[in-house]
Amino acid sequence: MTLTHGPELDPEFVEGIRAITEEQIVFNKVLGLKLTHLSGDSVEARIQMRDDLVGHFQYNRLHGGVISAVLDTLGGIVCLNGVGVRYAQETVKERLARFSKLGTIDLRIDYLRPSIAPHFLARADLIRLGSRVGNTRMSFTSPEGKLLASGCGAYIVS
Amino acid sequence: MTLTHGPELDPEFVEGIRAITEEQIVFNKVLGLKLTHLSGDSVEARIQMRDDLVGHFQYNRLHGGVISAVLDTLGGIVCLNGVGVRYAQETVKERLARFSKLGTIDLRIDYLRPSIAPHFLARADLIRLGSRVGNTRMSFTSPEGKLLASGCGAYIVS
Amino acid sequence: MTLTHGPELDPEFVEGIRAITEEQIVFNKVLGLKLTHLSGDSVEARIQMRDDLVGHFQYNRLHGGVISAVLDTLGGIVCLNGVGVRYAQETVKERLARFSKLGTIDLRIDYLRPSIAPHFLARADLIRLGSRVGNTRMSFTSPEGKLLASGCGAYIVS
Amino acid sequence: MTLTHGPELDPEFVEGIRAITEEQIVFNKVLGLKLTHLSGDSVEARIQMRDDLVGHFQYNRLHGGVISAVLDTLGGIVCLNGVGVRYAQETVKERLARFSKLGTIDLRIDYLRPSIAPHFLARADLIRLGSRVGNTRMSFTSPEGKLLASGCGAYIVS
Repeated sequence: MTLTHGPELDPEFVEGIRAITEEQIVFNKVLGLKLTHLSGDSVEARIQMRDDLVGHFQYNRLHGGVISAVLDTLGGIVCLNGVGVRYAQETVKERLARFSKLGTIDLRIDYLRPSIAPHFLARADLIRLGSRVGNTRMSFTSPEGKLLASGCGAYIVS
Repeated sequence: MTLTHGPELDPEFVEGIRAITEEQIVFNKVLGLKLTHLSGDSVEARIQMRDDLVGHFQYNRLHGGVISAVLDTLGGIVCLNGVGVRYAQETVKERLARFSKLGTIDLRIDYLRPSIAPHFLARADLIRLGSRVGNTRMSFTSPEGKLLASGCGAYIVS
Repeated sequence: MTLTHGPELDPEFVEGIRAITEEQIVFNKVLGLKLTHLSGDSVEARIQMRDDLVGHFQYNRLHGGVISAVLDTLGGIVCLNGVGVRYAQETVKERLARFSKLGTIDLRIDYLRPSIAPHFLARADLIRLGSRVGNTRMSFTSPEGKLLASGCGAYIVS
Repeated sequence: MTLTHGPELDPEFVEGIRAITEEQIVFNKVLGLKLTHLSGDSVEARIQMRDDLVGHFQYNRLHGGVISAVLDTLGGIVCLNGVGVRYAQETVKERLARFSKLGTIDLRIDYLRPSIAPHFLARADLIRLGSRVGNTRMSFTSPEGKLLASGCGAYIVS
């Protein structure tokens, strides 16, 4: 998997977001979350099914908590991308430092269908970026594009 | 830690719930979730802080996804407890088999304060148990009882 | 305004849905809710701004409660449309009678931008229809298509 | 009905909140919302059942949108009360002017039981007041104290 990105984001910022998401947020390593595309108002990622991520032992389903953790993370990252575009005149370091001021206000997840597949795709869209609050919509899908879970979140941004 | 329970639940059912929660839901082992009290309309649990559960690397905060996973799990378990009391005339095996028909419809989590502590307490209360839907309220607190996150969920029950 | 509809719905069912929504749900008359398009998995409507629907007196904004009431209603109606298509072999009367078994389980509304306009458009999409639960996504927009509020809901269906 | 209040709020501020809630938010008059108690971290109110507030015509149930409108309003007011206590050194006029900077970020409502009664009670509690966001929990009950609906909200405050 390679990580692609839109023209509104510069490669150094993209690599910084990747390092934060995949390495510095330790729990994301436990989940095996991998970013696949970043733009100023969307984020796409992928997660591999593994035995230790199983929720419902009888059906080999992915645990709902993995889904909420992934969607929460992507919602936060898409807000940070939006902030990165807004403050394009700042250095990459300054823009990435805004991550430390980012926080999830609240999150809703709708579990629509059993999550059983060899891997999963996830996506977050930034539907509004205010001066203090970012709002996102998220989706969690099978490799065939079937919608398995849906989410929305509000994030505090600076 | 010992697992205590109310008189409306029998020890064999309690042990079954414990085995499902702590062993059979594999991802809960990753989280280190331990039940501490079960009743017909509430569940209490405990989770130890660990390096691999860190979300915000700069502050050693617990990842929000751990919180949502724990609260989602407890919301489901308290529904199952309520179902266990409702069908008290069934065998323990029959009542525990109802777990396979339980599912989260949706979940909301409010992240109120940074989750930084050596361990955390979590609780779910059953605020309504209908014939098809159970509704729960959850809280996630510091050892001193400070409310760190709050949640509510709807579950399909049978 | 005329009420149009997709080929999967028959005119008699559409008229029944209109009568329920605009006349029999009394509070919708207070709101002035008018349906504009119905299909098996979407509903569109319109609402006129009026002085008695103002929330924030200083800015002449629509009250958030009007938005949540409209989006809740449309979420329920799109579930009923889906049920109407699923039970196409039943009489219109039988299918409309399923309305009495429909209920909102829960609802989330995100208020994105101040709702100031001469009229508003609202839409609900059915993202999943199970045997017991329907899940919807809703949007509330200005006449120019600007997203003012967003919502999602879970409904009990029969 | 009289409007009582806790000692942390002064009578002039309380009267200001009452005027905003019951008179200046025009749609609240349509709903007939009456405040009954205000404190720095809670708000209680009452609403009379009326024919034009009916949702489900077959059962004479209150429309869910009335419930969400009432709970949204009370969540906002309890945030304003908290702000009023925090800025106790300001004049009443200055503190009430903060209402114009208050806004609902998002809202969740759980509909638990059919709302059929001659009147209803509603309550909001402030569970956290940050510098930018206030978080609330709300309940909607029958005169006998039966929980009919439950809610939580996030509000932007200044």
